[in-house]
Amino acid sequence: MNKLYIIKIGGNVLDDEKSLGKFLNDFASIQSPKILIHGGGKIATAIGDKLGIESKYVDGRRITDKPTRDLVTMVYGGLINKQITAHLQFLHCNAIGVTGADGNLIKAVKREVGKIDYGFVGDIAPENINSSFLYFLLKQNVVPVFAPLTHAQGEMLNTNADTIASVLAIALSKHFDTRLIFCFEKPGVLRNISDENSVITNLNQALYNKLLSEGALHDGILPKLENAFSAIRSGVKEVLIGSHTHLLTNTGYTTQGTLITLQ
Amino acid sequence: MNKLYIIKIGGNVLDDEKSLGKFLNDFASIQSPKILIHGGGKIATAIGDKLGIESKYVDGRRITDKPTRDLVTMVYGGLINKQITAHLQFLHCNAIGVTGADGNLIKAVKREVGKIDYGFVGDIAPENINSSFLYFLLKQNVVPVFAPLTHAQGEMLNTNADTIASVLAIALSKHFDTRLIFCFEKPGVLRNISDENSVITNLNQALYNKLLSEGALHDGILPKLENAFSAIRSGVKEVLIGSHTHLLTNTGYTTQGTLITLQ
Repeated sequence: MNKLYIIKIGGNVLDDEKSLGKFLNDFASIQSPKILIHGGGKIATAIGDKLGIESKYVDGRRITDKPTRDLVTMVYGGLINKQITAHLQFLHCNAIGVTGADGNLIKAVKREVGKIDYGFVGDIAPENINSSFLYFLLKQNVVPVFAPLTHAQGEMLNTNADTIASVLAIALSKHFDTRLIFCFEKPGVLRNISDENSVITNLNQALYNKLLSEGALHDGILPKLENAFSAIRSGVKEVLIGSHTHLLTNTGYTTQGTLITLQ
Repeated sequence: MNKLYIIKIGGNVLDDEKSLGKFLNDFASIQSPKILIHGGGKIATAIGDKLGIESKYVDGRRITDKPTRDLVTMVYGGLINKQITAHLQFLHCNAIGVTGADGNLIKAVKREVGKIDYGFVGDIAPENINSSFLYFLLKQNVVPVFAPLTHAQGEMLNTNADTIASVLAIALSKHFDTRLIFCFEKPGVLRNISDENSVITNLNQALYNKLLSEGALHDGILPKLENAFSAIRSGVKEVLIGSHTHLLTNTGYTTQGTLITLQ
């Protein structure tokens, strides 16, 4: 099977023009089929502030009300997504900027109202990926660039970018040897959150369970690790977590950071 | 050759939710391959006002400075484009929202600075359309929905939606019997701008030249007619100008409005 790289970048890369430029150069230089998923970044908050759209939280969970949904549709799906796409085109990488609504690539289910009403948030599963259309785009050497948005019932929905990356990787692992790479602000999963030299280079399910039971992992990394292990358990060949400056270089791809494995 | 419908809608449809809903129903019911191009609308101005982005004009011509370019990238390429795409998906029309940057569909040339610096405006020609990728999308029953944005040198550019519609129609007329439909706020090209019953039902090049020399046409319609005749002279089978409520019905397609022909 051909290799497929699925790479997710977060706000720390998006918020710094130089950092984003370097990342996109490295990304464009990958010769295999590839998919990029980007998150949000400070720009959405800054524009939201100017528009008088407040970030709302209930029990520490972010709520996507209608104005916030429209804000992220504009900023993630329009501004950030098209800036990245135009930049990649300039680097001769034939990017196509998409959301889950485009070509019905990711159909979501609006999260049910339980104790908390999360608002316009979409939950997704690998079986709701239009993988045949994605496969067809990849075969044309087109490079999908996903904004973290999905759709259901005619509405755009906000969806976690890590989850999109993981679910895309699972859905495409029947067509490709899929390598899923989560880029974030740390060099990898750290044993000690305040020590950047404490990267866990290999993290398998058994060690993960052990660290979880010891409460040894920082809360912030847990959702990412859940997405990573979900992918590994569902046929994704390799998951890496780390900093984009170490995971990608202009000579290609290295395996610094934390490598997630099943066993 | 198969028929292809290329339909452009303007602000008057976009600004009214009910009107847009009716239009999208009618559009989704067209069984042939089809492409939608949308313009802007009042929402961009409203959001621009809140963000403190002024519309700038020089000699009556709109200037797209950087903040305005970012505004239209967000609002046209994000908000409006994705709302339409999600709505069409709900109607079982497999829409994909795109700009000219996506899949390199429309590569532009940034307008040269002459007497006026128009800013981030892209000029386009039929030879800069990636018609093979468009053809390939249409063959997959995917329905491209274009925001009026193109790209050059890694930058997003603002481009007139009528021009995009015309240039797409010309580029695709080698693959399809192309019918280009411009929907606007009038029932057609009017002999008398204040009389909606004065629609010119057939307008050929000779009559157009005559009306032009007599100064009988309203200034506002001239750019649209230039785009229409440019298309007709370059192989597009049929161009219609009129109101979406008359040009499209839920039983399909009628020819009310102004039919533009070569002879």
